[in-house]
Amino acid sequence: MLNRVAIASIRRFEIGHARTDQDLVAVEAPLAVELRHAASPERRALGVFMRTPGEDRDLVLGLLYTEGLIRSLSEVSDVLFHPAGDRPDTAEVVLESTVDLTSIGSRLLAASSACGLCGRLAVDGLDVLARRATAAPPLLVPPSLILSLAAALRDRQTVFAETGGLHGAGLFDAEGALRVIREDVGRHNAVDKVIGAALERGWLPATNLLLAVSGRVAFEIVQKAVMAGVSTIVAVGAPSSLAVDAARAAGATLVGFSRDGRFNVYSGWERVTE
Amino acid sequence: MLNRVAIASIRRFEIGHARTDQDLVAVEAPLAVELRHAASPERRALGVFMRTPGEDRDLVLGLLYTEGLIRSLSEVSDVLFHPAGDRPDTAEVVLESTVDLTSIGSRLLAASSACGLCGRLAVDGLDVLARRATAAPPLLVPPSLILSLAAALRDRQTVFAETGGLHGAGLFDAEGALRVIREDVGRHNAVDKVIGAALERGWLPATNLLLAVSGRVAFEIVQKAVMAGVSTIVAVGAPSSLAVDAARAAGATLVGFSRDGRFNVYSGWERVTE
Repeated sequence: MLNRVAIASIRRFEIGHARTDQDLVAVEAPLAVELRHAASPERRALGVFMRTPGEDRDLVLGLLYTEGLIRSLSEVSDVLFHPAGDRPDTAEVVLESTVDLTSIGSRLLAASSACGLCGRLAVDGLDVLARRATAAPPLLVPPSLILSLAAALRDRQTVFAETGGLHGAGLFDAEGALRVIREDVGRHNAVDKVIGAALERGWLPATNLLLAVSGRVAFEIVQKAVMAGVSTIVAVGAPSSLAVDAARAAGATLVGFSRDGRFNVYSGWERVTE
Repeated sequence: MLNRVAIASIRRFEIGHARTDQDLVAVEAPLAVELRHAASPERRALGVFMRTPGEDRDLVLGLLYTEGLIRSLSEVSDVLFHPAGDRPDTAEVVLESTVDLTSIGSRLLAASSACGLCGRLAVDGLDVLARRATAAPPLLVPPSLILSLAAALRDRQTVFAETGGLHGAGLFDAEGALRVIREDVGRHNAVDKVIGAALERGWLPATNLLLAVSGRVAFEIVQKAVMAGVSTIVAVGAPSSLAVDAARAAGATLVGFSRDGRFNVYSGWERVTE
């Protein structure tokens, strides 16, 4: 918890009253990710990512996997971290020669500052998601399981995380048991971290796991889940229109507003059944 | 409002009860932004941005300004929109020859999928923000003004916006009067839109205006505000550690958790005074 939270001196105002105090803030810091082949010292910049430090290896692995740069852990020789004072921390990812690095520049140029996947969406449309959807049939999900996921995620998040700006993401099995949880100031980072942790543990494609997230679901979250083989996404917050479209295109189950004993199913409601 | 919201068929579950229903979802859709000089047909891709349609010209102008690509509206000859069916909408920005387009590729490569500013942060550190801060002295801000901003923003946001996934951003004058408000599924888009609208109206650098946002404040929001000359940022939600650092480096006033008659000042509290 400690590296995810910093202490800030603040001035606290309430009606008719002000005092100097201290407050906790979620840590946000840049991580530069550079890729190279094991046989070559030449590094290519994947980019600089704002994240909450702490599970950087999970983040990097999840990012490479959900971006489609690697298909298995065996393609990663090593991930070396170089902390660097005033400069951002750097993750140097050493990859097997089977990984194609030549397209990275143009990919990122297409992807730009919005998200690493919109570029591909722009080129390929939602079909790309449908093609990535695994052959495994989507899980049947009892309503009681859906309700338990949001509760389990909330139970594991601290009050600080809920109020202070950390998004949570968790992978659960079909019995509702929590397999891994991660938190980050960026909601897509939290998802990349759980997917990276799943890759490390040999769980991908995670066709038998469910993804729960503490906040809203935009397109990118659905896309990352589908890339990881996850066919059920349960969110405490609202989905966007494109998240709904993407889930439907990929044949995934998308649940939103799962809290206080109720939820809405936006995609795949024939699979939400006792 | 209509283009910002779509209707989705859903299945609504409450304890012991399920029914088919319809729900509103915030629209998220890609916008490809391409730049060219007035004298040349050659377009350069700035990127594809996921946004809520509706004020695309504001978004594009704000993005170009906060990215530092343009310094005034006079550098923009035209912004042409090409809707395109299955493909993303495209904004074709025609720029005067004074705008340097040669660096766009490398800038985005450095910036990558996290945000368009982290790359620069990686290269230049927080100093870049301090150098961009305007010479104008930051505003003195009475606590009553701060409280009124969050209330005014909330009053203008619909219940849907609050619960359904639209972030709000507003520019206010020093008397608390709302000058412009914008909503988007992306919180940084909402800020770019108000800044673009301010550019169009000749208000930049907006040294006498305050920015209020409905959610959390990460680094990128502070950076965009500083680029626009805004020295006071009031958020309903939590700031990140780097947002606090950035505000302090730029000499800006940063307020968080402004709701229910109270707020915290994370930077510049000597300026929060009757």
